[in-house]
Amino acid sequence: QSDRLTGLVHRLKSLDVPYWQEKMSGVGFVTSIDDIAELPFTVKSELRDTYPYDMLTMPIEDCARIHASSGTSGKPTVVAYSKEDLRVFADVNARSITCAGARPDDIFHIAYGYGLFTGGLGLHGGAEMVGVTVVPASGGNSAFQAGLLADLGARGFCCTPSFAVLLGERAIELGLMDQIKAEYAILGAEPWSEAMRQKIEDMWGVDALDIYGLSEIIGPGVMMESVAGKGAPFIYDDHFFPEVIEPDGDNAVPRGEYGELVITTLTKEAQPMIRYRTGDVTRFVDEPSACGRTFQRLDRISGRVDDMLIIRGVNVFPSAIEAIVLDDDSVTGQYAIVVDRRDAMANLEVRCELSDAADLSKRDEIRDRLERALNRTLRIRVAVNVGDPQSLPRQEVGKAKRVFQRTGDDDPLG
Amino acid sequence: QSDRLTGLVHRLKSLDVPYWQEKMSGVGFVTSIDDIAELPFTVKSELRDTYPYDMLTMPIEDCARIHASSGTSGKPTVVAYSKEDLRVFADVNARSITCAGARPDDIFHIAYGYGLFTGGLGLHGGAEMVGVTVVPASGGNSAFQAGLLADLGARGFCCTPSFAVLLGERAIELGLMDQIKAEYAILGAEPWSEAMRQKIEDMWGVDALDIYGLSEIIGPGVMMESVAGKGAPFIYDDHFFPEVIEPDGDNAVPRGEYGELVITTLTKEAQPMIRYRTGDVTRFVDEPSACGRTFQRLDRISGRVDDMLIIRGVNVFPSAIEAIVLDDDSVTGQYAIVVDRRDAMANLEVRCELSDAADLSKRDEIRDRLERALNRTLRIRVAVNVGDPQSLPRQEVGKAKRVFQRTGDDDPLG
Repeated sequence: QSDRLTGLVHRLKSLDVPYWQEKMSGVGFVTSIDDIAELPFTVKSELRDTYPYDMLTMPIEDCARIHASSGTSGKPTVVAYSKEDLRVFADVNARSITCAGARPDDIFHIAYGYGLFTGGLGLHGGAEMVGVTVVPASGGNSAFQAGLLADLGARGFCCTPSFAVLLGERAIELGLMDQIKAEYAILGAEPWSEAMRQKIEDMWGVDALDIYGLSEIIGPGVMMESVAGKGAPFIYDDHFFPEVIEPDGDNAVPRGEYGELVITTLTKEAQPMIRYRTGDVTRFVDEPSACGRTFQRLDRISGRVDDMLIIRGVNVFPSAIEAIVLDDDSVTGQYAIVVDRRDAMANLEVRCELSDAADLSKRDEIRDRLERALNRTLRIRVAVNVGDPQSLPRQEVGKAKRVFQRTGDDDPLG
Repeated sequence: QSDRLTGLVHRLKSLDVPYWQEKMSGVGFVTSIDDIAELPFTVKSELRDTYPYDMLTMPIEDCARIHASSGTSGKPTVVAYSKEDLRVFADVNARSITCAGARPDDIFHIAYGYGLFTGGLGLHGGAEMVGVTVVPASGGNSAFQAGLLADLGARGFCCTPSFAVLLGERAIELGLMDQIKAEYAILGAEPWSEAMRQKIEDMWGVDALDIYGLSEIIGPGVMMESVAGKGAPFIYDDHFFPEVIEPDGDNAVPRGEYGELVITTLTKEAQPMIRYRTGDVTRFVDEPSACGRTFQRLDRISGRVDDMLIIRGVNVFPSAIEAIVLDDDSVTGQYAIVVDRRDAMANLEVRCELSDAADLSKRDEIRDRLERALNRTLRIRVAVNVGDPQSLPRQEVGKAKRVFQRTGDDDPLG
């Protein structure tokens, strides 16, 4: 790691590329991986600002491939790969597929989209390296794909967790599930929970394993769970060096605490990333994996930094609150989270509403039950307010707004 | 060719695979490519009947990849590739891209669909072998793709001819055409005409070149035009041996006459094809290509065997008649072709209708003009009937029926 980082910094400092000259201008000598905090962070907007090629360390003509985001907000972000970068990309995906239990004589069904998105071609390169028989199914057409899984005899498949559920529903509808011999599923490109893992494993009778990646770093294959080490994927730290940083600051959080994952590419040629702020929240896990692999482990991604609330020093994800509210049938799925900032120490209030007017007399009992459940999970005190049926405002269009800040005496829900 | 064919026949005869045992049971010694007519034909339904793996010459576990048709009529047809088959697949596509004028320092934009369809991954493998910088754009999203062509600086691209037109229209609408530096376009997977080539070349300022292939043989890269030899692509006959056969029979047509293209794969490992009837109509072209390549040349595909009419020994494609009718503004785009088989020698009648009732008095003049044009192009006598405006039956749903057979005195159009 130290040699690779030192070499990378040396190379970047000597480049005749304006972006890198500016980026590396304040950086002194780096002799060890322990000096990494001397380096500046990189953020996503720099990819947009250098579109398309101003961040590259080599001429685009010498590169081997370009991937890109779909560019929903104006210009896409593009990332370029040298031939050696593609070899590393295939290698980390080959390792990941092997972690899932793949063997060279498997038939492996890839239901990630192919093209500019890194998912399909990324896993495809890894699968070719492992030597499995690849079925490049790509996305969509779930009934057809369920038929292929049954007829072609895949032992493993990969896709997004939500597509795995859709595909499974289709296979069950069509009466094909018994013919499907899949034993493992590699799922990623969306955050997903342990509850979702259980659902998919029950549905398919597979080991469902989390793969993590992002195109800015390389694509899928940055982190991967192994069958024996579910819950804490490892990061391939011979290529991708991880740090966990204060989401709202520049310093590392204490070892084992949650923070923002920051990654430095140690070996990337065409478009290296120095301390890239991923926006994803995780923490270091120091227990070794039962599978024997010795890469650094991290917790599964809990969510995005932007979604995380910090209440009295504790990180709280709206998704954890949602799970508890949805779990109690006495209240509807509607809820609102109010962060009350009128005191120096923020207080958290959760508002929900009764499912049934007949339960009006049980309001206190339901409130106490929810408060206990939230307290147990979040480890902070939460005030619950159980309103009348249909008392919470509904939102018909767009992404539901769930989190409200309260700084004055007006009710933030209006 | 002789050695490869002899080796292939020897291998297939010795296989312990029921399909091949039956297929090769009547085949005697083959010592030269000239004996190829001793071998049985293969037709598409055999791929369906052996679904998924009964045609393979090796265990599916030893294969490297599967491609498949989308299976609109029930089960898909699948084709399997060994690792060596994929190398050949990449090699013939690398040659094809080079024929178009590609150089290793190009940026090459692939707008064929990726996945089970052979187009995207086929050209992708060839492009990697050439060493260009690949932009795996895949299908769809034409406005976004036009932006990428302008911003990323592709020197070449590939897609279907119809997508090239759509992409070009989008680039013009968005004012991007001037920024696009493309010099060549590799187009295939749909039949297209010289008129379409002219349209695309004018629109884009590129050399537009025809690539031909079919998944049963390998995918794209079976035949390719070169810049200096437009109009007559060559077939890579070190791998794919061509014959041109009577569409309704088993014998070769005289050299240079039109017939059905039949291909034998000389080197394919996992799923070879013996005398596969492609259903595509072409003829041998013996003039050497100006580019100096010495592969056997063929005429561009004129259409499907099923669409071809044989009138007095002359092959007539409905598309040729359509082009002439559409070219005359006095008649509408509606037409019907009646093959009158009441005599031993079939007669051809084309029915169209006036665009404008004001032209009723010019009916004879218009008829004579169309008859002359059809006679000049088709080299057979055609009777034209110019009906009143709106006199031809319209069909609202499905593929238009244009060709009618007349065997009795009733009017086949009813």
